[in-house]
Amino acid sequence: MFLGVGARRVQELLRGEMEALGMVVRVDAAGNLRGTYAGAAAGESVLLIGSHVDTVPNAGRYDGVLGVAVALGCVRALRGHRLGFAVEVVAFSEEEGIRFKLPYIGSRALVGTLGAAELERVDGGGVSVADAIAGFGLDVKRLGEAGLTPGTVGYLEVHIEQGPVLEALGLPLGVVTGIAGQMQLEVGFRGRANHAGTTPMGLRQDALAAAAEWVGVVERYAAAVPGLVATVGVMQVGPGAANVVPGSAVATLDIRHAEDAVRERAAAELVRAAERAGEVRRVSVTVRELSRQAAVAMDAGMVGVIAGAVEAAGYGVHRMVSGAGHDAMILAGRVPAGMLFVRTPGGLSHHPDEAVAVGDVAVALGAMMRVLEVVSD
Amino acid sequence: MFLGVGARRVQELLRGEMEALGMVVRVDAAGNLRGTYAGAAAGESVLLIGSHVDTVPNAGRYDGVLGVAVALGCVRALRGHRLGFAVEVVAFSEEEGIRFKLPYIGSRALVGTLGAAELERVDGGGVSVADAIAGFGLDVKRLGEAGLTPGTVGYLEVHIEQGPVLEALGLPLGVVTGIAGQMQLEVGFRGRANHAGTTPMGLRQDALAAAAEWVGVVERYAAAVPGLVATVGVMQVGPGAANVVPGSAVATLDIRHAEDAVRERAAAELVRAAERAGEVRRVSVTVRELSRQAAVAMDAGMVGVIAGAVEAAGYGVHRMVSGAGHDAMILAGRVPAGMLFVRTPGGLSHHPDEAVAVGDVAVALGAMMRVLEVVSD
Repeated sequence: MFLGVGARRVQELLRGEMEALGMVVRVDAAGNLRGTYAGAAAGESVLLIGSHVDTVPNAGRYDGVLGVAVALGCVRALRGHRLGFAVEVVAFSEEEGIRFKLPYIGSRALVGTLGAAELERVDGGGVSVADAIAGFGLDVKRLGEAGLTPGTVGYLEVHIEQGPVLEALGLPLGVVTGIAGQMQLEVGFRGRANHAGTTPMGLRQDALAAAAEWVGVVERYAAAVPGLVATVGVMQVGPGAANVVPGSAVATLDIRHAEDAVRERAAAELVRAAERAGEVRRVSVTVRELSRQAAVAMDAGMVGVIAGAVEAAGYGVHRMVSGAGHDAMILAGRVPAGMLFVRTPGGLSHHPDEAVAVGDVAVALGAMMRVLEVVSD
Repeated sequence: MFLGVGARRVQELLRGEMEALGMVVRVDAAGNLRGTYAGAAAGESVLLIGSHVDTVPNAGRYDGVLGVAVALGCVRALRGHRLGFAVEVVAFSEEEGIRFKLPYIGSRALVGTLGAAELERVDGGGVSVADAIAGFGLDVKRLGEAGLTPGTVGYLEVHIEQGPVLEALGLPLGVVTGIAGQMQLEVGFRGRANHAGTTPMGLRQDALAAAAEWVGVVERYAAAVPGLVATVGVMQVGPGAANVVPGSAVATLDIRHAEDAVRERAAAELVRAAERAGEVRRVSVTVRELSRQAAVAMDAGMVGVIAGAVEAAGYGVHRMVSGAGHDAMILAGRVPAGMLFVRTPGGLSHHPDEAVAVGDVAVALGAMMRVLEVVSD
């Protein structure tokens, strides 16, 4: 959680590690822990590497924090060797956005988009982001100093895949080419609640029957478009009694693709499909947009370097689009960004059983060292 | 509600009406109000007419009580004329079964199936049926006296249709030939919850997608079998977040038909359809039977007399199966029973807007008088 008790503990732990590696450590006004390992000379460029240290309730141990651990592993592996640039390791304070329903608080501070509106957001207890910052002993007025360190030339992030693709391919690593654009809609179906025993099939206005037909269309449509994922994750039926024909059904549609045009076309098609499923049952359909976010590409140069490092490590290069958002998506707006995915057993994430194989982490560490080497040349 | 404050008030009101009509009134140990209008001679047979006076929360004004009002209307219309049998009007204390999740408490007492198990049932506040009876000032030990009055030759019930069929046909009345058999199943779909962004369509185990396909099968199957109604009224999705592929879905299936064999075959087919919808998605399916009740036929002689009365009133005779349960279903186990349905505007019932047309009630009253006349002959 953003700047809760856990944040204090993880920062103390990481600060100790960083200082032992000779890094200069600070916590910026957004609560990001930032440690700098100086390069061979002063005034040089800075390569930012990191990920987030918050996660979701009832989560696993690798989402986010693995990327910080690998970044520190790189510094440790340098064994005091100095590169042609400084390495800044960042442990972002908040990526998931659970507490304030506001993701990327940490990385927004670095790119300068954590403004007044965001600072005024309150959590379930009425505490604002600004209050939380002050409560953690930080000074919100110094947010300006939380921006990118001058001379930052790029951002690298290692993260678990949180999906089953690499496992299915038998590969330890994946090279992220971009973050999928995403849209969430709420689709409401309104028919008429009726007695399940006395209403013949032909005289019903069954909202769930309409919604269910549409769920099938969503599934088939997405399966037929390469790279598209579409999910109906919520389905609330009213009145929701076994002996009553559903009068209402409220569903969500989450739809993602690397190309915004493909996603927008899919969303329009699926909204029409919902309307058609309603029409034949005299069920009205209303659609509300919950969120919409354009796709973000990783830097082509970064992708090339990361792909080369994976190849040099002796593994097949799988370029992939991330279906989930990451801090790299925020940083990409300001600096060349790249991401390396680590295979996630069973694709399981945001779950206590979330895991990574030690061998895969070793391969990731080796690839990242190779990236540093290439960038340093 | 069974023997609540409302029950006292409605009984006082009805008792006044009954006594004004010269009826002998008692409340039996199950809380049923029973008024007898004597026939031409003592020791003769008894025709029981009535319905229930309880209903559901947020209900309308006609479900149940219309049948009692029409029964009293018949006695009033006799204007003191004595028939060849006594007319006993019953206002059943509990048909819906809301308070104890136990329907037909009133009519069960008349046929002798309100036993120890039923009396021990408790409501949400821990009060048992027996306690409620005592609390109302009645003596549970006298339940034996709540049985059918000796000499009872039949039971007649007028009830709103609670469905849209008569309205669609343009008829004020319907002749009930039987009560549909009914079965409720809980169907659980268990797949695997996964990240909506990182899990490609081909690697999902989407429980809702399986359940939704099945809802479509249920709808099409029932539409294709005359007289069958099948309803999925509950659909609970877990974890139920917009950005998570559903790992579980729990649905109910309510299925009814006049012929038990048709219903049983449909249930078996639809369970197999659920399993198939799961199989193709690696989603497991479990089925639990919640309730099962055989169809009950109304007495052929009664049906004939009622149909004749509707015809004599100048209306088309529509013989229909009741999709909802009624007290007549309970009484039919002991005496010849018959039911007359009254058109329900919009098919709307268990709703504050529940209505009946005054003209339709007049037609029902006239038909019932004709039934009394024919039975008396």
